[in-house]
Amino acid sequence: MKTTVFDGKSFSGAIDRETAAIVQRFISIKGKKPKLLIVDPTQSEETKIYGRSKIKKADKLGIETFPLFLNPTGQNENPMEILENIITEVNPDGIIVERPYPFWLDSLYLEQIIPEYLDIEGISIKSQGKNMIGYPYLIPATAEAVMLIMLSLGEDHHRNVCIINRSTIVGRPLAMALLSKDYTVTVCHSKTRNLKEITRSSDIIVSAIGKANYFDASFISEGAVLIDVGTTESNGKIVGDFDMESVSGKASFITPVPGGVGPVTTSVLFSNMMKAAMDRIEERLNF
Amino acid sequence: MKTTVFDGKSFSGAIDRETAAIVQRFISIKGKKPKLLIVDPTQSEETKIYGRSKIKKADKLGIETFPLFLNPTGQNENPMEILENIITEVNPDGIIVERPYPFWLDSLYLEQIIPEYLDIEGISIKSQGKNMIGYPYLIPATAEAVMLIMLSLGEDHHRNVCIINRSTIVGRPLAMALLSKDYTVTVCHSKTRNLKEITRSSDIIVSAIGKANYFDASFISEGAVLIDVGTTESNGKIVGDFDMESVSGKASFITPVPGGVGPVTTSVLFSNMMKAAMDRIEERLNF
Repeated sequence: MKTTVFDGKSFSGAIDRETAAIVQRFISIKGKKPKLLIVDPTQSEETKIYGRSKIKKADKLGIETFPLFLNPTGQNENPMEILENIITEVNPDGIIVERPYPFWLDSLYLEQIIPEYLDIEGISIKSQGKNMIGYPYLIPATAEAVMLIMLSLGEDHHRNVCIINRSTIVGRPLAMALLSKDYTVTVCHSKTRNLKEITRSSDIIVSAIGKANYFDASFISEGAVLIDVGTTESNGKIVGDFDMESVSGKASFITPVPGGVGPVTTSVLFSNMMKAAMDRIEERLNF
Repeated sequence: MKTTVFDGKSFSGAIDRETAAIVQRFISIKGKKPKLLIVDPTQSEETKIYGRSKIKKADKLGIETFPLFLNPTGQNENPMEILENIITEVNPDGIIVERPYPFWLDSLYLEQIIPEYLDIEGISIKSQGKNMIGYPYLIPATAEAVMLIMLSLGEDHHRNVCIINRSTIVGRPLAMALLSKDYTVTVCHSKTRNLKEITRSSDIIVSAIGKANYFDASFISEGAVLIDVGTTESNGKIVGDFDMESVSGKASFITPVPGGVGPVTTSVLFSNMMKAAMDRIEERLNF
């Protein structure tokens, strides 16, 4: 079987063109560029790389970025107060807080200081709750990216999807969104006992476990659709959860790593940001 | 195999005894009974029956009930305004809005007038969102009842659960809650193609489809745990989704209908109500 390899660059390019047009409309109405606040609480190498790619794309789209490095070194520093002040000062149109969160970052406090319409990552309790009850507005960008890719494959949604990830930014919101589209959904995780049995009986497998080349052809059925959300460095190369070489010829479709879900996720983030910003301007939504 | 039949009456009795004790504590602090507002927007026979059983249990627990029948007959009536006024007037400690909602009942407006701490059904966007992100507080009573019954079966949670229902009051919140407890969860529904294949490979099956005796022994594997949330009238008798006669001897455990999940759900509703009321009094939670 011929395995179609997803082209994340061209897919995300289409989203970006639309976002860039909306940015221009925003600028023509407000007379200034939309502002994105990128909070980096860890300053790890990983978040720096992700941060840079976001800044680069924002530049291209016409969005102004404000990086904020929150990395408390002394006991007197209050990072939450700093964040609160900078939100007031910058008055951004969207906020991203890079993960993983360090221990001192209280996500429930974050919840209180980031309003829903600035939560372009779709991680707030209200955003998640709306997705849960079938009225999604902003959902976590990775989950939405996977959704968009799956929906682009055609109208047959009555299929079985297995998601290997139960996090609040991938597995859980994706499961809720897919149920609204008539997919039958199984959520697996590290404690799942018969993983191979489940993946082999699934039409679509979404993996976000971050283990290099973990799933070989023995895990999938002939013609499976594979969506790879894993990103791991292996021998100096960035690779996904699926063993590309092994599954090629057996899967019908696969998203590569890099160049698959990743770029779409970043594009969705900015498209979410501009959707929320325009809805605010045009008072289309009661947040 | 011997099939254990769950005793919902004794299980709910244990919850009720605890709730009754909390009600007494509430009364000793506040000098008055806790108040439950039961809104019936349809006045159908079904909601009347459910409503009566709730009023009866509330009485026994020492909770005062205020039934409100919202059934607009003329164009000038504004049922939402009536509801809003009665909330102010009664100042209840919990609100239940009976389902199914009629077309004129706007659930997003309901959302705005019922504060989270009175939402003892756990159906508000915030309650659902908290469950979604793994910090459940009040979750829909039926989902919580099923959780409690499952957890009472022992510590082995690494099992496969199949939920046949994707509603916002059963399937979705139950799936999120079970994932937090390490279960592997599949959510099925009317569009699922290979239902029998999925139910047969599940250790635990939770059904809430409301089709009399729909699942016979051919749908389950030897030793399966069956949780029956369906309630249908058939030949003048109330029956569940599982064909009790057929699955007996093959399942290891089943909750009967009536007398299974139903009474536990009602008990959970009141236990939720008193939990929220006491947390408010003792300022344990920032809603």
